[in-house]
Amino acid sequence: MLIAAFLTTPHDDGTTHVADIDRSPRLPGRQRGTESRYGNRPTMKDVAARAGVGLKTVSRVVNGEPGVTADTERRVQEAIESLGFRRNDSARVLRKGRTASVGLVLEDLADPFYGPLSRAVEEVARAHGALLINGSSAEDPEREQELALALCARRVDGLIVIPAGNDHRYLEPEIKAGIATVFVDRPPGLIDADAVLSDSRGGARAGVAQLITHGHRRIGFIGDQPRIHTAVERLRGYRAAMEDAELPVHPSWISLGSTAPERVRGAVADMLDGPEPVTALFAGNNRIMVTVVRALAGRERPIALVGFDDIELADLLGITVIAQDAALLGRTAAERLFRRLDGFDDAPAHTTLATRLIARGSGEIPPQ
Amino acid sequence: MLIAAFLTTPHDDGTTHVADIDRSPRLPGRQRGTESRYGNRPTMKDVAARAGVGLKTVSRVVNGEPGVTADTERRVQEAIESLGFRRNDSARVLRKGRTASVGLVLEDLADPFYGPLSRAVEEVARAHGALLINGSSAEDPEREQELALALCARRVDGLIVIPAGNDHRYLEPEIKAGIATVFVDRPPGLIDADAVLSDSRGGARAGVAQLITHGHRRIGFIGDQPRIHTAVERLRGYRAAMEDAELPVHPSWISLGSTAPERVRGAVADMLDGPEPVTALFAGNNRIMVTVVRALAGRERPIALVGFDDIELADLLGITVIAQDAALLGRTAAERLFRRLDGFDDAPAHTTLATRLIARGSGEIPPQ
Repeated sequence: MLIAAFLTTPHDDGTTHVADIDRSPRLPGRQRGTESRYGNRPTMKDVAARAGVGLKTVSRVVNGEPGVTADTERRVQEAIESLGFRRNDSARVLRKGRTASVGLVLEDLADPFYGPLSRAVEEVARAHGALLINGSSAEDPEREQELALALCARRVDGLIVIPAGNDHRYLEPEIKAGIATVFVDRPPGLIDADAVLSDSRGGARAGVAQLITHGHRRIGFIGDQPRIHTAVERLRGYRAAMEDAELPVHPSWISLGSTAPERVRGAVADMLDGPEPVTALFAGNNRIMVTVVRALAGRERPIALVGFDDIELADLLGITVIAQDAALLGRTAAERLFRRLDGFDDAPAHTTLATRLIARGSGEIPPQ
Repeated sequence: MLIAAFLTTPHDDGTTHVADIDRSPRLPGRQRGTESRYGNRPTMKDVAARAGVGLKTVSRVVNGEPGVTADTERRVQEAIESLGFRRNDSARVLRKGRTASVGLVLEDLADPFYGPLSRAVEEVARAHGALLINGSSAEDPEREQELALALCARRVDGLIVIPAGNDHRYLEPEIKAGIATVFVDRPPGLIDADAVLSDSRGGARAGVAQLITHGHRRIGFIGDQPRIHTAVERLRGYRAAMEDAELPVHPSWISLGSTAPERVRGAVADMLDGPEPVTALFAGNNRIMVTVVRALAGRERPIALVGFDDIELADLLGITVIAQDAALLGRTAAERLFRRLDGFDDAPAHTTLATRLIARGSGEIPPQ
């Protein structure tokens, strides 16, 4: 069982691992095989089939790498010419002397979670000789759309999106026009596209299970707004852990809403001082956790706490967390994007990265 | 005296204030008055002079704001036409239906100090209907140049730069071509341009004075690399505070270098366990402070510490800091940039924002 594995074998080397790669469900109306993902442009696969060679050989020829005989290279070149294959927009742009570029649509420039994610994307882009340009939606779906389309209009070659909204059909024409697009942290809505996500549900389940293991029966969940995918997934993880232990959940123990400190402080007070007081809290993300830690610091009796996301100095404060690897999320998404730009045209996939429980004391406080 | 004022009247409302606005020194070879800063385009001032009205009136006409009589508006419009004045690239671009944009060259996407700064710049850009696009130099002067020029090539209307390098002559053609440029956090090198800075020297001086006030005579300074302007300024502040108190400084008490945890941990160990041990430490920036806090947490006797930059959860850890207002830095720089884009053509200025000492306990620990 996955949760047990987390609890008994934490990854002490600080890495997380790809837990699961599954195909995203096909959307109605999209027929795989009858149309290429990026319009009807011939792909490297088509070139490989026409030339009677492997994909790697085509890649070598296209990228000018060694290890291909003159005869094979000639056959590949002929196939490229007869099919009208062009490697990708990025390469085309590079030949024209303009820097290739990748756009990153963030949710909030000031959220420290996105710092390492952005930097990892930038490092991969840099390794591919591309420029990274960022912007943020400030958690506003309209701004997300405006920014993503503005980046497309500025001829980015690819787009990595941390979505604020739940409807990304506005990106379909761009994707068809050849702009590779990968979603990260949260999945796309109503379109079929690559995504790299953390295992929010499994992580929250493991965190709540940790509190239950240490004797808690009345546990509060304070999460982000219910229209945010990760907020709902983490709540599902909470419910699953409570169900696993056959514990009832009182409605007053669940509070979803903004991450504004006043809102979170109110939720903490309601849960601890209300008619059905909890003995432990689960904080649904790093912004919420910071406020909960501050609220609990002012209380006389210690309250158990597990938070989603590791934050700087949480180690010194002894906060037990479910850690995501933000840099690995960014790196995985960027590598997926450059694979698309290199002409790989397999079906969009959703990749889920495992989270990691780091026990530091606050999640191991027994109930009073 | 400025330092005394900080110590006796901390700004409890959480704001910092513009301490000082001074003209940056003129560079040789630039003659003010004989050429306009942004090439030879007519400015709003020229329009105002020609129409015989004030600058504000021209601004109202250009921006379609009320409060101008029909006769005055006609005179201003005539002046605009006869001079061939165009408001600015941003407005021109907006008329053409393309979104105006501002580029922000950051030092490090993952440094939490730049999160609120970036967000503040984005909010100002947003209020002006402009898109913000970011990238980072990763503290590499070549990358800074490459990124800044790539953003210019993508026709940003203005540029805000947190410089990694010390020679910005490469930007002079861009500035002449009309790309408004403002430096923030660190000043430009070898060119004359707007800059918005924190009072690094004054802040460090106040922080070290705080340690001296609490009885310390042997104080270590761990700072960033000496080619970084703020690192040198903060070291100057340290030296000034020691001189103010007529205290000698042993060479082993000063360590400048990278912010890599190993380097910083080594510096802490050398200063505390060497032949001339210190009783207190001053950390030159937030990255260094985090490592120093971790290193001190593992020690038996408490060591006094003041750090430059406030960081999240420093309040709960009782860390005394010199706080900069990163959001105010960003906002001030962005507002300066949009003033330039609105056609204001006064001489470049360096604005210095005050820092604020926040005493939380670690800086008030007496010597052992």
